[in-house]
Amino acid sequence: MTMTHAEEMLQTHPTGAVVKSGALADCIEACSDCAQSCTACADADLGEDDVATLIRCIRLCEDCSDICTATERVVTRQTQSEPELARVIVQACAQSCRLCGDECQRHADHHEHCRVCAEVCRRCEQACEELLSALAA
Amino acid sequence: MTMTHAEEMLQTHPTGAVVKSGALADCIEACSDCAQSCTACADADLGEDDVATLIRCIRLCEDCSDICTATERVVTRQTQSEPELARVIVQACAQSCRLCGDECQRHADHHEHCRVCAEVCRRCEQACEELLSALAA
Amino acid sequence: MTMTHAEEMLQTHPTGAVVKSGALADCIEACSDCAQSCTACADADLGEDDVATLIRCIRLCEDCSDICTATERVVTRQTQSEPELARVIVQACAQSCRLCGDECQRHADHHEHCRVCAEVCRRCEQACEELLSALAA
Amino acid sequence: MTMTHAEEMLQTHPTGAVVKSGALADCIEACSDCAQSCTACADADLGEDDVATLIRCIRLCEDCSDICTATERVVTRQTQSEPELARVIVQACAQSCRLCGDECQRHADHHEHCRVCAEVCRRCEQACEELLSALAA
Repeated sequence: MTMTHAEEMLQTHPTGAVVKSGALADCIEACSDCAQSCTACADADLGEDDVATLIRCIRLCEDCSDICTATERVVTRQTQSEPELARVIVQACAQSCRLCGDECQRHADHHEHCRVCAEVCRRCEQACEELLSALAA
Repeated sequence: MTMTHAEEMLQTHPTGAVVKSGALADCIEACSDCAQSCTACADADLGEDDVATLIRCIRLCEDCSDICTATERVVTRQTQSEPELARVIVQACAQSCRLCGDECQRHADHHEHCRVCAEVCRRCEQACEELLSALAA
Repeated sequence: MTMTHAEEMLQTHPTGAVVKSGALADCIEACSDCAQSCTACADADLGEDDVATLIRCIRLCEDCSDICTATERVVTRQTQSEPELARVIVQACAQSCRLCGDECQRHADHHEHCRVCAEVCRRCEQACEELLSALAA
Repeated sequence: MTMTHAEEMLQTHPTGAVVKSGALADCIEACSDCAQSCTACADADLGEDDVATLIRCIRLCEDCSDICTATERVVTRQTQSEPELARVIVQACAQSCRLCGDECQRHADHHEHCRVCAEVCRRCEQACEELLSALAA
């Protein structure tokens, strides 16, 4: 099985990763995927005829994309890490993915992009929870 | 006294701001200022002869800039706000500013950019705490 | 007259700024202001009853906010600067501000937030053009 | 072969993507990968004993990550797209990846993370060039 670039970058870090587990690479990749899906979902919502019913979805997708991007960057960095700072930003990210995934799910039957985005949010929420467990270990 | 553009934008929002107080505009502006100072401080550190002693400062400034940027965007948005999401991201931001401000302060006697950045971090930490109080009210 | 933090950070940089003029600080501050206004305007549009007529405004505000944020960071950094990279990103930013400012202007009579955002975009476009002139000098 | 989430989101967009080709999905994914690798490489550089020889690498990685993140967001959006704005930001991204890839390549023999990051930058530069060709077609 091929390593992703995120895994390769973690393995070639001079001081090694803080968390010795796949949870870190999974969280980085889930945040990256979720940031992209949320930007795409907010934009697809804007192209729908029923945009007026999708306002909360757009709003939460915008927030979720911004928080996932920041979280991805913070947990990517391994030099002089502050586990407590990682913890609070990953918690914020999990919460954002939960709220956004719940809202996208409400529109999943009508809009395929909301269905896909809800899945990606769920996976990112779960990856954040698993990293929180690994950080607490 | 002139209003800032952030204040003007809050006052012209169709549904009005969630938090009826100056705490919101102050937090937006403090996050914006802190994101810029932290990017500038990390970069100035890279130009110093004693860069090897500034690694933790660079790392925390990078994180703080990313978290302030995300926080500024989330608290700027007023449509369909989720106070609980605002709360967790502003808490993460306050913690990031505290850690980064403490580290910059340690170098304040040797590097003027660290002294300025420490001040800006303190102000942003305080603005975050004040917004958290306003959100809880 | 008080210096802004962006100016203080430029003046305390160990190697000094690449561009010896106020054009750099002006561009940094204009990008910061424009990124915030565009996020706020896109969000205010989402709260309007006539949101369906504001789709292009929202789209361009989102792009403009992202490009201003990246540009602000790139031009803030002074260590080992690449003038050619600064040039292309500042050009992209000027173009984004022009397109977004034109679109916001179209809604300025109906929505005060669009009027304010159009002004901020114009000022950022101009600050980018002035920095491009200073970089070419 | 499984579709990526970026491809799924493009295919479920209500108005369809501006560019009818795989070049768009490739560019989105390459930007996402490159933003992450550049953040990771800048951070790994900070953990190296010879950090003082890696200053230009760190600087260019920081810029490249910021520009890739903005570019990924702009080209992800398909509603009311402005091809000319896409063109200038993708050009800036190609140039950033070229400069950053060249610098990382100079350290590829000594630092494995620079070798991986150089490859990712090259691939993103190429994906940007291919999207520019598709946009011009």
